[in-house]
Amino acid sequence: MQMKAWSVQKPGGSEQLTLVKRQVPTAEKGELLVEVSYAGINRLDILTRENPAMKKPYPILGVEVSGVVKENHSDNPSLEPGTKVAGLVKKDAYAEYAIIPAGRAIILPKEMSLKDGAAIPEVFLTAYQTMYWLGKLQAEETILIHAGASGVGTAAIQMARKISNARVIVTAGSQEKLDFCRELGADVTINYKQENFDEIVQKETDGHGADVILDFIGATYWHKNVNSAAVDARWIFIGTLGGVEVDHVDLSAFLGKRISFIGSGLSPRSDDYKAALAADFQKTVIPYFQAGKIKPIIHQTYAFADVAKAHQAMENSENIGKLLIKVKDA
Amino acid sequence: MQMKAWSVQKPGGSEQLTLVKRQVPTAEKGELLVEVSYAGINRLDILTRENPAMKKPYPILGVEVSGVVKENHSDNPSLEPGTKVAGLVKKDAYAEYAIIPAGRAIILPKEMSLKDGAAIPEVFLTAYQTMYWLGKLQAEETILIHAGASGVGTAAIQMARKISNARVIVTAGSQEKLDFCRELGADVTINYKQENFDEIVQKETDGHGADVILDFIGATYWHKNVNSAAVDARWIFIGTLGGVEVDHVDLSAFLGKRISFIGSGLSPRSDDYKAALAADFQKTVIPYFQAGKIKPIIHQTYAFADVAKAHQAMENSENIGKLLIKVKDA
Repeated sequence: MQMKAWSVQKPGGSEQLTLVKRQVPTAEKGELLVEVSYAGINRLDILTRENPAMKKPYPILGVEVSGVVKENHSDNPSLEPGTKVAGLVKKDAYAEYAIIPAGRAIILPKEMSLKDGAAIPEVFLTAYQTMYWLGKLQAEETILIHAGASGVGTAAIQMARKISNARVIVTAGSQEKLDFCRELGADVTINYKQENFDEIVQKETDGHGADVILDFIGATYWHKNVNSAAVDARWIFIGTLGGVEVDHVDLSAFLGKRISFIGSGLSPRSDDYKAALAADFQKTVIPYFQAGKIKPIIHQTYAFADVAKAHQAMENSENIGKLLIKVKDA
Repeated sequence: MQMKAWSVQKPGGSEQLTLVKRQVPTAEKGELLVEVSYAGINRLDILTRENPAMKKPYPILGVEVSGVVKENHSDNPSLEPGTKVAGLVKKDAYAEYAIIPAGRAIILPKEMSLKDGAAIPEVFLTAYQTMYWLGKLQAEETILIHAGASGVGTAAIQMARKISNARVIVTAGSQEKLDFCRELGADVTINYKQENFDEIVQKETDGHGADVILDFIGATYWHKNVNSAAVDARWIFIGTLGGVEVDHVDLSAFLGKRISFIGSGLSPRSDDYKAALAADFQKTVIPYFQAGKIKPIIHQTYAFADVAKAHQAMENSENIGKLLIKVKDA
């Protein structure tokens, strides 16, 4: 059986995106075949699209979907056909059908829409992994979240407030974004274009600093992040929007404040890691969704035909929360 | 009652060391008064001695001793007077009497001499904390230990081999030091003056790299340490013998290899932390000493009168293993 999917004509800009016909994938033991309702847009998809090292046949883009189980090849009876799930796919997400390894399927609560579900996997799992598995965020600690209005940022703000009652400090580049972060629970909002965030962090914490830093930025924020770190800070580095080369790095602060600087990323992790993370997330965080205390943040949903527009929106950082494409009505 | 102790006339070189008379300290609840047999020399003592910010009255130097319990003000019956102990003192170690908080006293096995015991606390606890609490060294992993012949280095080599059957790669600056590291169990020894250690690490691990790096060096080894790190490496930074300012830092390796760079130090930790570490160490590592599988490494023992000579030896990095001063025969 054939299906429609999005690939590229050749590596490059969004004009290279092309709708193709591919075979519906075959689920193997331990996997689910899912009829896709929505696929999420991620910055990684754009890096893949542009990657000059990509080999033919060019892949279907995307890493996450929501949808309905069509075939359950696992021994988990909770995943029978008809179950609403979301998750990180094995590969190939912008398509009518996708494979999710059963271990990393998130079972959506009955009251949650498939659209809302599609806004969960990548950003919430990344934020959860970063804050809790790597950052070991403790109750009442202070967390500094850069790019607060991004998909991962909006997920992180909510979890930090609702799960940990943390003090949340965010940076973003517009008043609209900062206002939205405050609605989600941010205690302190900083426009990085107008203010030195390290000075605000020090002032707002009476010199204590941030116990956890979520850093999508890298080089351009390096020195200010060092200044913002508390003693025993866990500074989790998961993106390079501000470049990768830093000069005049002073290591003495890392000794004096016992800073942990931890580079990470979710996508290249092992299957076992992703499954364990999804299981922990299902148990720990999904109840907050059911109780309405945490919500998926969706900026805009695009028609399946409009993937190029969705990519352009992400490239322009226009979004507050997730960008989705609608593949099929559930 | 008065005792003899070593302080400084004013902050400066080893010529400023001065023998003084002080009151025997008073043990409070939860503490031990210990009659000191040996005190260990540490690089921190030299930093203290030189510290221009030091205020009068100048302190007694030193952070660790071995000795015999004179008064037990804790409720731990295993620490009755006459017990042989070693440990990190509350403060003031180069003296005839010292206070050890009971929680961080290491009870020495009967067959171990007080001299050997004095070579344990600072270097073995630091190496243990660094490798296991921070570096999470797993069985059969590869560890890169810089300054392999130092006090912490010689402790780390032995524990990595005997507790974790790790593959141990060391750097040092002379053939004599490297030979000694090999006797202690190092699998690969590198003279950093003659070879690029990152190339050897890559070659000897077939491109895998080091899972854990013990870094006392800092700036001058930065780029080679990045090159040496394995995917998911834990790089523990505990000393600045090679300076603190680094240029051309490339953050992309931290994302690509998911490197954790963790600054730390044992001395400024809380009392609770030190007590928990000592308790874990007593349970996990002391049995290896009893079985003769791990041994304290002592380079030289100086008479109580010769503290200045001991400091000079440390400043010249002459030592393989610990430098001690003998305060009293047990």
